[in-house]
Amino acid sequence: MTTPTTEQDVLALAQRARAASLGLALATRAQKDAALLAMAEALLAAQEQVLAANAEDVARAEAAGTPEGIVDRLRLTPARLEGMAQGLRDVAALPDPVGEVVRGSTLANGLELRQVRVPFGVVGMIYEARPNVTADAAGICLKSGNAVLLRGSSSAAASNAAIVEVLRGAAEDAGLEADVVQLVPADSHDTVKALMRARGAVDVLIPRGGAGLIRAVVEESTVPVIETGVGNCHVYVDAAADLDKALAIVVNAKTHRPSVCNAAESLLVHADVAEAFLPRVVEALQRESVTIHGDAAFTAYGGVVPATEEDWDTEYLCLDLAARVVPSLDEALAHVRRHSSQHSEAIVTEDQAAARRWVAAVDAAAVLVNASTRFTDGGEFGFGAEIGISTQKLHARGPMGLPEMTSTKYVVTGDGHVR
Amino acid sequence: MTTPTTEQDVLALAQRARAASLGLALATRAQKDAALLAMAEALLAAQEQVLAANAEDVARAEAAGTPEGIVDRLRLTPARLEGMAQGLRDVAALPDPVGEVVRGSTLANGLELRQVRVPFGVVGMIYEARPNVTADAAGICLKSGNAVLLRGSSSAAASNAAIVEVLRGAAEDAGLEADVVQLVPADSHDTVKALMRARGAVDVLIPRGGAGLIRAVVEESTVPVIETGVGNCHVYVDAAADLDKALAIVVNAKTHRPSVCNAAESLLVHADVAEAFLPRVVEALQRESVTIHGDAAFTAYGGVVPATEEDWDTEYLCLDLAARVVPSLDEALAHVRRHSSQHSEAIVTEDQAAARRWVAAVDAAAVLVNASTRFTDGGEFGFGAEIGISTQKLHARGPMGLPEMTSTKYVVTGDGHVR
Repeated sequence: MTTPTTEQDVLALAQRARAASLGLALATRAQKDAALLAMAEALLAAQEQVLAANAEDVARAEAAGTPEGIVDRLRLTPARLEGMAQGLRDVAALPDPVGEVVRGSTLANGLELRQVRVPFGVVGMIYEARPNVTADAAGICLKSGNAVLLRGSSSAAASNAAIVEVLRGAAEDAGLEADVVQLVPADSHDTVKALMRARGAVDVLIPRGGAGLIRAVVEESTVPVIETGVGNCHVYVDAAADLDKALAIVVNAKTHRPSVCNAAESLLVHADVAEAFLPRVVEALQRESVTIHGDAAFTAYGGVVPATEEDWDTEYLCLDLAARVVPSLDEALAHVRRHSSQHSEAIVTEDQAAARRWVAAVDAAAVLVNASTRFTDGGEFGFGAEIGISTQKLHARGPMGLPEMTSTKYVVTGDGHVR
Repeated sequence: MTTPTTEQDVLALAQRARAASLGLALATRAQKDAALLAMAEALLAAQEQVLAANAEDVARAEAAGTPEGIVDRLRLTPARLEGMAQGLRDVAALPDPVGEVVRGSTLANGLELRQVRVPFGVVGMIYEARPNVTADAAGICLKSGNAVLLRGSSSAAASNAAIVEVLRGAAEDAGLEADVVQLVPADSHDTVKALMRARGAVDVLIPRGGAGLIRAVVEESTVPVIETGVGNCHVYVDAAADLDKALAIVVNAKTHRPSVCNAAESLLVHADVAEAFLPRVVEALQRESVTIHGDAAFTAYGGVVPATEEDWDTEYLCLDLAARVVPSLDEALAHVRRHSSQHSEAIVTEDQAAARRWVAAVDAAAVLVNASTRFTDGGEFGFGAEIGISTQKLHARGPMGLPEMTSTKYVVTGDGHVR
């Protein structure tokens, strides 16, 4: 494969994807599942060459002084390869979203109407360091009948090239066209720009990664975008909270996996329970090495640093937490309205009326009652596979599984019907 | 109300819409239906002032030498006002999409998961001459819990101002905030530009009108757009067609209402039936004053003008039709793939395999078998109300009723659940 860097070259990849998508859209579930299982086997069979390619990427990253946390995300191991293969097998086991009848009826004039799920056609994925996303995204796109253009990070270029070569070979062996999966070169930002301009050639772009990447794609793309994953998530501890539950939820939401989008970034505590709750929560969080950026009520405790206005809007993605005391549920709602990224917003309360109010008034992909924000996740929701978590309101909101990777069409069947 | 023309002024309208949307999102169906019925009554009660305002617009249009067809679309009559009022009553009678549980389950850990329909928040409508759209769009947005910013045509400015004043008053009398319906001044294109740049303040833009308007909004807007209504629709008469049905469908699809997006613009005829069908269809279409732009097979008939390459891509919206003979179903599919705007594509055939192939292979909002393309319509589909026909693949595709005017949120209820 040559290395296309210009707009025309990326468009040529998109046209090959379009051509391949026509056959893929008509493939049966059996054909798609066979390809997915073949991909899983092929990945394991090619373990040596994939790990060798990955070692190149890792060596390059280490030579460039990349922080170990990022190098670790880049690194593949036999266990991680097995995880990628298992992910492909899991997707094979899921129901086929294509062909699902969403609704249907027979109209008064006898016309039969059905709304049926169909693939988008060509999906562009733009993502960062982790090479496992390459296999995950290819699997989800294939199962949902979409040809995919994968634009990964340049830091994972060798790994991604090796993985895609294996996946394409397996797809072809299983009777699909190899071009259902294609890698877009990562040697220049121009290829991202070309994808963003490929309206008509690419049906939807899904950026996965940091806030900067996502914002850039959302703002610059003329191709429709599904925005994913920025989470400034709040936990609000209500006046009627069970404080044991509240403590467990706050600690879990902040510390269980601080680097992900459904981790909590802000804590709001109702004034009525501040005296009882603050000493407990400050102690518990500090025991887990959390730095609290607090208002005056919180800074009364040792080790709490004063919050700035900026803290309320910050997605830390690490062991930092903004915290304030609010005089009322209304003020908690107002705070969330001002600062939320509309990802996941949790209330802890035993008061049914407060829970109902929170659920109705908070505008977010997920609103949670007496549960950690960490539950907003395709795996936790039982979707079996997740391509990302949408934080936009159009098309899909929240964790996106296979059905969210489809469009629909109306099928209207008559017997010579005219108006 | 002052006349805002700058970006800031339109943003201020959007902020008022946002503030009003918070209450509207929580309004019960009873409150919304009461407001809709009050709006219908108020429109009829204000008939005199609305018709007087409309007379100003009509006089201005006539003085400017506007073609009578367009003046007619602008003109309101007591009957048309009654139609607008009835439209509002019809929307009141429809089920409330807000709060509908789309799916739900109890997870293995006991968490209760529900996906619930919620309003978008603030909707921007950008539309052309017909003042009835003002009431229709306001009604659909209100019922779906969305505050609406209406940016109509400057030619209908007086009519729209009068209608919006009446609707706002009625909404307020019924206990909603007047700002759930607001008119964006039409005195300058800058207000359209400001709406397109109001990302975050406006949740979705819906352009309704000519292809040029829609293309401009789709390409320039940073606010998510639902693309509507460009239809280069085909009727394909298969080798196995019942030619009587085919004749009725072609004539209906082309001539029933040529100015709308679901009218047919191209006819494809399988070579095997050309000799039998062409004389009949040419005669029948010409009797209805249709100008046929045909290939060599068609131009053998008197009055048929030769088609140019451009004709295959033209949405005439009048009594013109492009027509060609194709050697096979495959070539018909290839032609549609090249030229379709993915709105509505009909096959006429008695052959089950051909029908199945068409339905599976044609990528469009609606695929029709033995039925006129004119059936792609919210009213015909039984939706009760329609804000437009989406020709995009994300969010909504085909006629958009009330459910398509909503987003969803996940409600997760636990009992102190942590991961």
